[in-house]
Amino acid sequence: MPVGTKGTVRGVLPTDLRAVGSRMLLANTFHLSLRPGEDVVRALGGLHGLMGWDGPILTDSGGYQVFSLGARTKVDEDGATLRSTVDGAPVRLTPERVMEIQHRLGADVAMAFDHCPANPLARDEVGRATERTHRWLARCVTAWREGGAKDGQSLFGIVQGGAFEDLRRESAETVTSHDLPGYAIGGVSVGEDREAMLLAVNTAAPLLPDAKPRYLMGVGTPLDFLDAVERGIDLFDCVTPTRHGRTHQAFTSEGRLNLRNRGWERDTDPLDATCDCPACERFTRGTLRYLCQSGEMLGGILITLHNLRFFHRLLEEIRAAIGAGTLASLRPRFERAQRRVGAS
Amino acid sequence: MPVGTKGTVRGVLPTDLRAVGSRMLLANTFHLSLRPGEDVVRALGGLHGLMGWDGPILTDSGGYQVFSLGARTKVDEDGATLRSTVDGAPVRLTPERVMEIQHRLGADVAMAFDHCPANPLARDEVGRATERTHRWLARCVTAWREGGAKDGQSLFGIVQGGAFEDLRRESAETVTSHDLPGYAIGGVSVGEDREAMLLAVNTAAPLLPDAKPRYLMGVGTPLDFLDAVERGIDLFDCVTPTRHGRTHQAFTSEGRLNLRNRGWERDTDPLDATCDCPACERFTRGTLRYLCQSGEMLGGILITLHNLRFFHRLLEEIRAAIGAGTLASLRPRFERAQRRVGAS
Repeated sequence: MPVGTKGTVRGVLPTDLRAVGSRMLLANTFHLSLRPGEDVVRALGGLHGLMGWDGPILTDSGGYQVFSLGARTKVDEDGATLRSTVDGAPVRLTPERVMEIQHRLGADVAMAFDHCPANPLARDEVGRATERTHRWLARCVTAWREGGAKDGQSLFGIVQGGAFEDLRRESAETVTSHDLPGYAIGGVSVGEDREAMLLAVNTAAPLLPDAKPRYLMGVGTPLDFLDAVERGIDLFDCVTPTRHGRTHQAFTSEGRLNLRNRGWERDTDPLDATCDCPACERFTRGTLRYLCQSGEMLGGILITLHNLRFFHRLLEEIRAAIGAGTLASLRPRFERAQRRVGAS
Repeated sequence: MPVGTKGTVRGVLPTDLRAVGSRMLLANTFHLSLRPGEDVVRALGGLHGLMGWDGPILTDSGGYQVFSLGARTKVDEDGATLRSTVDGAPVRLTPERVMEIQHRLGADVAMAFDHCPANPLARDEVGRATERTHRWLARCVTAWREGGAKDGQSLFGIVQGGAFEDLRRESAETVTSHDLPGYAIGGVSVGEDREAMLLAVNTAAPLLPDAKPRYLMGVGTPLDFLDAVERGIDLFDCVTPTRHGRTHQAFTSEGRLNLRNRGWERDTDPLDATCDCPACERFTRGTLRYLCQSGEMLGGILITLHNLRFFHRLLEEIRAAIGAGTLASLRPRFERAQRRVGAS
């Protein structure tokens, strides 16, 4: 899922998003509740109206903002108080309130409100946050059954437990004790190392039911996708293709390119000779370099589209390889895609 | 012609530009010669490669920058010295140099280097600039015949003469004494009033040959188009649809809307019910207002596309009305399109 935090994948028309292979988008509960507000979104046809998108949309729950805006946040048993990113005013989130917002936004998939601990390596802190996540999940499920579920909305529970195998196992068991349409592994991609992320997936993924989607939140790089899919993960969201696109970093089958590099000035090759995106079909690296260098927004837009296409193609390759039983053979190509490549 | 000053119609993919009806684009000789430089543009496949555009491209000559960057510019008989907008260094433009740049850029239509006087009402100044424009045109024609013409490039001469009927007439006669692929009326849209613009067109247009394109530079509003076409003008360039789009002003059949206006917050209508652009097909005024208000670039991009579609449709209506002999009947609709409309 490309990330459209504020209800827009920055600079990209929905038709172009569809053309590069996007099927499902992510938007952000907390930010949209502040601006334009869930009632305005609802009046404008819900998230699908706001985003001009007729495919599925998942909303994260605001749990990640409790983590990422940590310094200005207070968590108690009932919920969390954050500061508005629009005007600094206090904003109260509880499991019930978060489910209400997601219902009013009209998300196809709502995420449970979880407590993502600041330090995934501090056992006491992680233990308390995981227990709280479980109590909040029960409240989310109740609110969802009385709300969004009646309108066909799905709810995914979130497994926490940081980098601790026993906590992750216990969390997976508690979360899956609720019969929900899907399950997610959270508390990853929060600054922990690769080992901690893999431990979380290794521990939790086998405990999630085979027949329901398993979603690894906020991950990741091409190799992360491969590692996670090998362990049973089905769904990802990641800001990398779009954020890197806007900062002029392109992913290609040969590695990562910084398009502001002088070395691309007269390069007449496309970003990636194997790619069929709008950037590669019509533009050279030299032109992209010029657009980025001169601050023209088309540069970031084109690289965003390219990166999205590249990431979707990686996942298309993974799906095909699962069918053919050749998943492991992808590893060298995925490793190559993560290298940095300088201009010639 | 939409304006792509620096080789890009800001934020718009070439495929979307084509889809809203654009056929021919304008780019800027002076700016592109500074960055990335005409040699880099040439190495990247010329302007068509740089812009990812396979339709015709016209380059203005830098004459307008001599005017618009006036305070830092010195004009002499041989040419003009401007200041670089990139680094402030002096840049020398002469008729021969301007033709060389346009040839190297690979423009389909090159414009003659003209001297556009700062004050179109100061007769002495206008007279001298017009005479100089004529001497420069002769040098442009010589350079073009030895350069761009051999590669199939067209050259358009530019009629000057400010707001003076006799100077305009004399200029039209002198400029058309050169057998060129097309002719333009310049020195308009430079701060003069509507009467002065119409006087220039009234005087010069009838003296330009029927069988060649007549191009009115830098104009204008919907009513300007109608007035000018009634007087025989065929071609326009104008920054209005794109610049207004980026600043969140939309043109519609009911008038002009400021999309930052609070009144549109929950408006579920499209910008214009009669429009088939990507903004009107998928987005409400409320969504556009939200995108503009929250600084999301998709807002400006969508309104740019809408405005381009709106302007192209005005010209499509004009073409159809010429065929049907009903041009005058368009006036009330074109007047309506210029009104400001507030939110309900």
